[in-house]
Amino acid sequence: MSKLDDVYAKLQVKTGAKLALIVLDGLGDLATKSQGWLTPLEAAKTPNLDALTRSGCAQGRMIPVAPGITPGSGPGHLALFGYDPIEWEVGRGVIETLGLGIELKNGDVAARANFCTLDAKGIVTDRRAGRIATEVCERLCGILSSKIKKVGTTEVLIYPGKEHRFVIVFRGKGLEGPLTDTDPNREGLPIAEAKPTDPDNAGQKKVAKLIADFYKLALPLLAKEKTANGFLMRGVAHQPDIPTFEQRYGLKAAAIAVYPMYKGLSQLVGMTKIEGPETIAQQFERYVKEYDNYDFFFIHYKYTDKAGEDGNFAAKVKAIEDFDAALPIFLAKKPDVIAITGDHSTPAAAKGHSWHPQPVLLHSELSGSDKLDRFTETGANSGSLSVFEAKYLMRLMQANAKMFDKYGA
Amino acid sequence: MSKLDDVYAKLQVKTGAKLALIVLDGLGDLATKSQGWLTPLEAAKTPNLDALTRSGCAQGRMIPVAPGITPGSGPGHLALFGYDPIEWEVGRGVIETLGLGIELKNGDVAARANFCTLDAKGIVTDRRAGRIATEVCERLCGILSSKIKKVGTTEVLIYPGKEHRFVIVFRGKGLEGPLTDTDPNREGLPIAEAKPTDPDNAGQKKVAKLIADFYKLALPLLAKEKTANGFLMRGVAHQPDIPTFEQRYGLKAAAIAVYPMYKGLSQLVGMTKIEGPETIAQQFERYVKEYDNYDFFFIHYKYTDKAGEDGNFAAKVKAIEDFDAALPIFLAKKPDVIAITGDHSTPAAAKGHSWHPQPVLLHSELSGSDKLDRFTETGANSGSLSVFEAKYLMRLMQANAKMFDKYGA
Repeated sequence: MSKLDDVYAKLQVKTGAKLALIVLDGLGDLATKSQGWLTPLEAAKTPNLDALTRSGCAQGRMIPVAPGITPGSGPGHLALFGYDPIEWEVGRGVIETLGLGIELKNGDVAARANFCTLDAKGIVTDRRAGRIATEVCERLCGILSSKIKKVGTTEVLIYPGKEHRFVIVFRGKGLEGPLTDTDPNREGLPIAEAKPTDPDNAGQKKVAKLIADFYKLALPLLAKEKTANGFLMRGVAHQPDIPTFEQRYGLKAAAIAVYPMYKGLSQLVGMTKIEGPETIAQQFERYVKEYDNYDFFFIHYKYTDKAGEDGNFAAKVKAIEDFDAALPIFLAKKPDVIAITGDHSTPAAAKGHSWHPQPVLLHSELSGSDKLDRFTETGANSGSLSVFEAKYLMRLMQANAKMFDKYGA
Repeated sequence: MSKLDDVYAKLQVKTGAKLALIVLDGLGDLATKSQGWLTPLEAAKTPNLDALTRSGCAQGRMIPVAPGITPGSGPGHLALFGYDPIEWEVGRGVIETLGLGIELKNGDVAARANFCTLDAKGIVTDRRAGRIATEVCERLCGILSSKIKKVGTTEVLIYPGKEHRFVIVFRGKGLEGPLTDTDPNREGLPIAEAKPTDPDNAGQKKVAKLIADFYKLALPLLAKEKTANGFLMRGVAHQPDIPTFEQRYGLKAAAIAVYPMYKGLSQLVGMTKIEGPETIAQQFERYVKEYDNYDFFFIHYKYTDKAGEDGNFAAKVKAIEDFDAALPIFLAKKPDVIAITGDHSTPAAAKGHSWHPQPVLLHSELSGSDKLDRFTETGANSGSLSVFEAKYLMRLMQANAKMFDKYGA
């Protein structure tokens, strides 16, 4: 914990305020000539967001991690939750596992894995085993998990993903990551050895031994398969021991997300998963219902990112308009502090995540007003919040909730 | 000292330039619907500030300490003076003492104190001794300070404040703070023991012993009082050994402030207190008179903060207009670099200090122009200085005074 974190902790008081963080995944975008120099947020018709903006909001843009760094969903959300994404690294194995909707416990070590093809000498000839069907993957994971429950005293959990992908979780005492990949990263080489990244780390050494032993048990079980007779492991990492949202902010938090990845990320910081809703309207309805039960609500909307990833400008506009249409359901129960933003930008022109600072809208009794008529990237550029690191959004939300005492006399 | 501070120090040169920092306390504010979406700075008629702005100024906003942190006057001014307010903490006892206009020396340990009522068993029955009249406080402090000049070899200085409040200063060798309060923070408990916050700190241990010994000497002197027969100490802290303004910047600095607190804060960094002026017009006149005697002028105007604290929007507008009316006196002797800003925001809507970045106006031959007609929060949002931490203002002023060599070739 930094000295500044320590100052925040000392100043923190309970106020009973309600806070809501609404994340339109990959919201930020770029104005390009082909779209008449408009971003999706600018092109979309958003009467409800406009009305909220005019009722008194501050705007700005947030650097998701650091200048020029494009975040995955993990670091993007950790920052939104107020955890420095450089300090708190969540390994790929953990993210992949969370993405499958699997709950991890502190101390678990998880790895993403994929089936591969080995020749008679154990050389990798196809790193993706010809992209076997998901059903084949499920069958093979079934074999592995029915035959291998433990390695020594350590529990082993195996979950199938899509096509050749699956995850392996080691659950036991004294385990630590990260380790190097067993994936040689190109064909023509044998399966690599998983090595500790810190040679003196006892927990990592234990996991290295576990992985070697696991291979000895697992490979014979796949020996009769033609294409998927081996497997490679990547991103071997342990679930970090992150202070929970309640420990850090004294806020009882609920996550209303549809996709497993975001439920998982919220759970990583100890939020309660609210299951059930499948549309943004249902998510907002559920928020209204749960309003009295929590102090903080994280509401995640996926479709802006999806459209951006597909490079589909019109679909991103539509996703924003769908969100806007549902917004009045949420506003029926207005919390003390509302933040609406993305976890990063996913510009349609980039067909993927990017480093461009995402716009953020902040509304509270003390947010003041930037006198802007709409919430847009261009408006946010001149907003009073300016450009800041996303990890500070929670601190601004807390300040707006009057959760901090004055610093010094 | 940080690595960056070290770089600044190495680049620093003498130029003979004159710099002026004019602080309108609590200047920053919020645009709210009830005031037609205007801030006081926007609502005020400021022809002189407008003319200065149009003559070529850069604008921006400053984060007083860190995102979401609301500073007291101490951290707010330390940052304006270019000292990191997270690194240099000035304890409550020190601030309170400075606020009474008492000069402290490096190494002094000061505590805010208040008289309280004790029952026969020494239990605190009223933490404020029924808010005794200031005259009673003065009489009791007179008794204590006439009877107790020293504890061991350490000098003890006692100064009355308002009602039940007073301050105690220990002056001697090897003293350090901070210590825990002797105030039990609620009635029904005995006076607490002042304990070192760092159990291994010899200076703190010495002060703990001093405080215990001081109680043994002082309590019998109050034994006959009915209501004010005890006292509680809070914010026991030592005057930090801050490098002076002259050491840090090579600038001979004068403080032209009316309120004791700000004279005290400027003295903490070694500025010369200029006594006498009582109005902003008089402060500016004195500045003109002293122009040749100093390199740097800190001019402090209190009434913007006062109006903000009272939630009095109209009074804050008036305070700004009064300031503006006097500004031509100052401008008659234009220094090379002028900065006009606040130490933080005190929004009328918040009736107190806040974390919102305060606007700053910078004028020099090299400030450039943001082509804005007025100095306002909204204008500052789009200014060339953008949003930055207040601790860097001094560095920008130095740069504008051509006080830095080029870094690297």
